[in-house]
Amino acid sequence: MPELRRGPIRGRWVIIAPERGKRPSDFRVSEEGRAASPDNCPFCPGNEHLTPPEIYRVKSPTGGWLVRVVPNKFPALGDYPELGRAGLGAFDRMNGVGAHEVVIETPDHDLGLADLPSEQVKLVVDTYVARLRELGADPRVRYVQLFKNHGARAGASLAHSHAQIVAIPVVPSEVEIRLQATWEHYERAERCLFCDILQQELGVGERVVEESEGYVVIAPYDSRFPFELLIMPRYHAHDFTAMDEKGRLGLADILRRTLRRLKALLGDVPYNFVLQNAPTRAPVGKPWWGEGLEYHYHWHLEIIPRLTQMAGFEWGTGFYINPMPPEEAARHLREQGD
Amino acid sequence: MPELRRGPIRGRWVIIAPERGKRPSDFRVSEEGRAASPDNCPFCPGNEHLTPPEIYRVKSPTGGWLVRVVPNKFPALGDYPELGRAGLGAFDRMNGVGAHEVVIETPDHDLGLADLPSEQVKLVVDTYVARLRELGADPRVRYVQLFKNHGARAGASLAHSHAQIVAIPVVPSEVEIRLQATWEHYERAERCLFCDILQQELGVGERVVEESEGYVVIAPYDSRFPFELLIMPRYHAHDFTAMDEKGRLGLADILRRTLRRLKALLGDVPYNFVLQNAPTRAPVGKPWWGEGLEYHYHWHLEIIPRLTQMAGFEWGTGFYINPMPPEEAARHLREQGD
Repeated sequence: MPELRRGPIRGRWVIIAPERGKRPSDFRVSEEGRAASPDNCPFCPGNEHLTPPEIYRVKSPTGGWLVRVVPNKFPALGDYPELGRAGLGAFDRMNGVGAHEVVIETPDHDLGLADLPSEQVKLVVDTYVARLRELGADPRVRYVQLFKNHGARAGASLAHSHAQIVAIPVVPSEVEIRLQATWEHYERAERCLFCDILQQELGVGERVVEESEGYVVIAPYDSRFPFELLIMPRYHAHDFTAMDEKGRLGLADILRRTLRRLKALLGDVPYNFVLQNAPTRAPVGKPWWGEGLEYHYHWHLEIIPRLTQMAGFEWGTGFYINPMPPEEAARHLREQGD
Repeated sequence: MPELRRGPIRGRWVIIAPERGKRPSDFRVSEEGRAASPDNCPFCPGNEHLTPPEIYRVKSPTGGWLVRVVPNKFPALGDYPELGRAGLGAFDRMNGVGAHEVVIETPDHDLGLADLPSEQVKLVVDTYVARLRELGADPRVRYVQLFKNHGARAGASLAHSHAQIVAIPVVPSEVEIRLQATWEHYERAERCLFCDILQQELGVGERVVEESEGYVVIAPYDSRFPFELLIMPRYHAHDFTAMDEKGRLGLADILRRTLRRLKALLGDVPYNFVLQNAPTRAPVGKPWWGEGLEYHYHWHLEIIPRLTQMAGFEWGTGFYINPMPPEEAARHLREQGD
């Protein structure tokens, strides 16, 4: 069973999830990727038996499926009955309670999210929302993390286009930092911090890549990475799963266009995207993370092209050296078109 | 001039350091490393003219040098006269004031720190200490970060063994988090948090890789990465640069042995090491980071083998999935020997 651990120095959780029988020699350095051809790819049609039993599917009108959701074969967290919280001297632990799912975004082995037709990306977004809603309903779950790893250098172990969803029993530190900042701003100003930043960015203009009816894409002022991007709803919205039909259509559209711009400018760049959504449940003693959320939090999607390496400086300081000013990144992406 | 930027959501600094004339096409995906042979390696003897003018050297008794320190050719920070703090609406900026140096750890192109004789590693440690002292004396500098990137996958752009030192005008968030934790513990218990953890780990034993007279190597309870290690002084010491001759000898010895264990077990694994030292100067309003430091802070060196990829989950949540329990990692490394 995976285990959640926290030490007092960094105060952040780590998931210790040993893969069965893995030995030091399995970690030995090798540059080979685990390429899978459509023949042995577990995400390709015809190979459905290679995945754990299916959780969800969008059926194709012509038979078969358009989107599938299955449990991760090496889950970071699992459906165990007890949280089993315990203190071990200075340390905290709990059982690795949660869920870990994979969204197979297309039956086509060779197409990335940027290459799919709009209608298919819309089905993918619908699936994200459906699974986030379902997983967030579990009372043991405090946060549901949606993310995507595209390309081996971004941590994808399989090439066939997919995203992942992890339901976790704690509010992660990255989310906590944001909630603290937006809450403090709301307390002081009675405005959403993200809405304020959006107004400023739209006024200045130089870091805006695209505005659509419902969304804005910007290269953040404090971008950690070259061509890092933020997609956020133009009008205040704290919960990704509350998006209506029009919102999902608009998101599918702008997400696809943004990925196409990146691909046109940089080639088939490895990237991660991560959803920063509101937590589904507030811990005791931090009620404002629950009740006030709808006022002060604003969901957003970060896209992180993996063009530079994390290195010692970043690990040591927690801050980043970025050789590409976001103003230039935004200009190149605007000029590129989609 | 590089620029330091901070946004209100994450509250952390980023260095925007554009390399002259770099265009989007320079970021396009390519798997080639920048291998240099001894002929064109700027860190090899005979090629001294390929580096910016030398800052420091340890002379060889037989002529030439044993260790050299030079400015980084693409510095993340530089020696500009003014901090130039400014607010831009919701954002903060300042000039990229600081220094960025490279420690060339051996004249030999082919030897890593793990392969060098003890006496040479001792000279390297002496050089770290000398440069950290010198750079920390600048009144504009609040923190000096020592780190090492070994191997392309750990962010090293040159293969010849070297470390880097960056002097920065702010206390980085990673250091701030640790200072906060150790300060709060000291306030409550009047003990050093690291000393407490060390006692607990020595008592439990299963995560201890090695104890020497002056140092302990452990696989941290909340290890983020497989085979992550922590080297720390066995007796309370807050400042790396205050190490005496015996302390430097002991550190050189245990650092070399630890790297040799990793290499014997895992091959020539890419790794980062980062020093977590006390800040050199406290910001106004946070005096305890200055005065009380000697009681509550405890310097330590983190070694991070780069065997797994940071991926979307880690970016999104700030917490990590580690497939290798530290108890097992420590056992394998103990059994391996050095």
